[in-house]
Amino acid sequence: MEEVEARIAQQAAAFDPAIEGYISYAIGGRGKRLRPILALLAGGATGKLNSGHVDLAVIVELIHVATLVHDDIMDEAERRRGQPTLNARWGNSLSVLLGDCLFAHALNLSTNFENSGIGRTIARTATMVCSGEMIQTQRRFDLKLSVEDYLRIVEMKTGSLFSAAGELAATISEADPSVIEMFKIFGMQIGTAYQIYDDCLDLAGSESVTGKTLGTDLRKGKFTLPVLIFLRSASEFERERCCRLVLEEKCEEMTELLKNGATNGALNESISAGSELIRKAQNALEKAGSNPYADALFSLGDALREIFDQLRV
Amino acid sequence: MEEVEARIAQQAAAFDPAIEGYISYAIGGRGKRLRPILALLAGGATGKLNSGHVDLAVIVELIHVATLVHDDIMDEAERRRGQPTLNARWGNSLSVLLGDCLFAHALNLSTNFENSGIGRTIARTATMVCSGEMIQTQRRFDLKLSVEDYLRIVEMKTGSLFSAAGELAATISEADPSVIEMFKIFGMQIGTAYQIYDDCLDLAGSESVTGKTLGTDLRKGKFTLPVLIFLRSASEFERERCCRLVLEEKCEEMTELLKNGATNGALNESISAGSELIRKAQNALEKAGSNPYADALFSLGDALREIFDQLRV
Repeated sequence: MEEVEARIAQQAAAFDPAIEGYISYAIGGRGKRLRPILALLAGGATGKLNSGHVDLAVIVELIHVATLVHDDIMDEAERRRGQPTLNARWGNSLSVLLGDCLFAHALNLSTNFENSGIGRTIARTATMVCSGEMIQTQRRFDLKLSVEDYLRIVEMKTGSLFSAAGELAATISEADPSVIEMFKIFGMQIGTAYQIYDDCLDLAGSESVTGKTLGTDLRKGKFTLPVLIFLRSASEFERERCCRLVLEEKCEEMTELLKNGATNGALNESISAGSELIRKAQNALEKAGSNPYADALFSLGDALREIFDQLRV
Repeated sequence: MEEVEARIAQQAAAFDPAIEGYISYAIGGRGKRLRPILALLAGGATGKLNSGHVDLAVIVELIHVATLVHDDIMDEAERRRGQPTLNARWGNSLSVLLGDCLFAHALNLSTNFENSGIGRTIARTATMVCSGEMIQTQRRFDLKLSVEDYLRIVEMKTGSLFSAAGELAATISEADPSVIEMFKIFGMQIGTAYQIYDDCLDLAGSESVTGKTLGTDLRKGKFTLPVLIFLRSASEFERERCCRLVLEEKCEEMTELLKNGATNGALNESISAGSELIRKAQNALEKAGSNPYADALFSLGDALREIFDQLRV
């Protein structure tokens, strides 16, 4: 991962000196680097790690950071990873363009693979991620959003990039098609579970621990899994009350409702849904055989499930 | 061009049905389609037009439209091509994502060329366009901006996409390297001239004719060629007065100054600089030989120069 971290940092130098500083700030945020970790572990699990895997790790992280930059503009978020967001620091205009630059550069790097199918999958994934974000934005405050709609959005906006990291890492290792397919599904499941976790965190987490502004989803009309599960099983009376709270922007009361467990355990049910996805991913991984990288991937699933469980009420 | 227009319209269908409508609105704006025209004419001038040229034409227009969508957000523009802008109609969040979608889709299409160098040039050009826009944004209200800085920004943000359209059209025709190089420079010169024209128009044009909100450049602190030429040759006294007007956001007075010719003919000088670029591009084109497509490209230069001249004061 050190090599990936160094290579991510190096990317700023590819830009015009006038904008290098902004790029450095954007990519230097010391995120969790989950997508690069997945790319490297899946690469090692399926063959000998090579520079192609490192490139892939850098590309998926750049695409992710680009979407974060644009997310923060739309959410008007002030802090991310304990630091001021780009938009809080330099305004929306520069941030829109900075996101574009990161995005373009990532796709630029992806054209360097000899196997042109890799660049193609990355570009297709980028379209998928943006489309997922767009559908999510379009359906804000939409009380007809179903759990299935939610899962589809999450698979598009988050799962697809994890999925591409897994699939392409195995492709770069020249693994068997069945193994490539397994890592593609593995990435989708882990990515989807991670997004469910992140959404639960926005409701039930603590700002001092996460280092970002929480509670933004409901305020922005984004109905996430716990809210949707609650609405699905709520009585007519409860549903109306809940909808009124959201539409009147009394999100804190709504959040309290979900946190104190008065909502038929909707938060816990969401956590269980995420844990179940991780378990499925781990089962498929086990069948594909064991080596230190595959074992580390398995442990990554365990770790994600554990932090998930800490949100239970 | 009809085929290109139909193919541009078709692109909306590549997206999720939920967002197809937005994409259609964005790409259906009936712009001038200058970049696709350049791609097709340069393709025909260097060989027999094929579906690769049409793809190229679609891709450069999609990248252009994506940047317009993001530009309109940053400029808070209300109208474009006589219609409400996307941000005026659906808000900034959806527009940020819509621009991203168009951008990702264009780069997605560009990975379909068998010659992977084409996709690579398109991705590099996209990075260049975004970087140019970013430097421009970063240097708003910067009274130290020189004419050379301005030209470099314009070459990056506008010239490079025209240049790629010319270069890659000739590449798809499998033209000689020297011919490809000529069209690359031709595109850069025409694109740069066009941007100079567009910048003069923002100062001296009429809203009812152009269908977009004018005068936004100065208001946003974007110093364009006429302003920079005036500042360069102005006396200390005039310069201070002018800078005060801009910083105090009295842009209309400043525009009047430039329009009524009290500014040492800075507007006319800008127009001449653009015309000169077009002439150079035409000269190189003539040397490369004549055919109906090359002749049409030559006429395109004439047409651009004529509308340029109408802005003279």
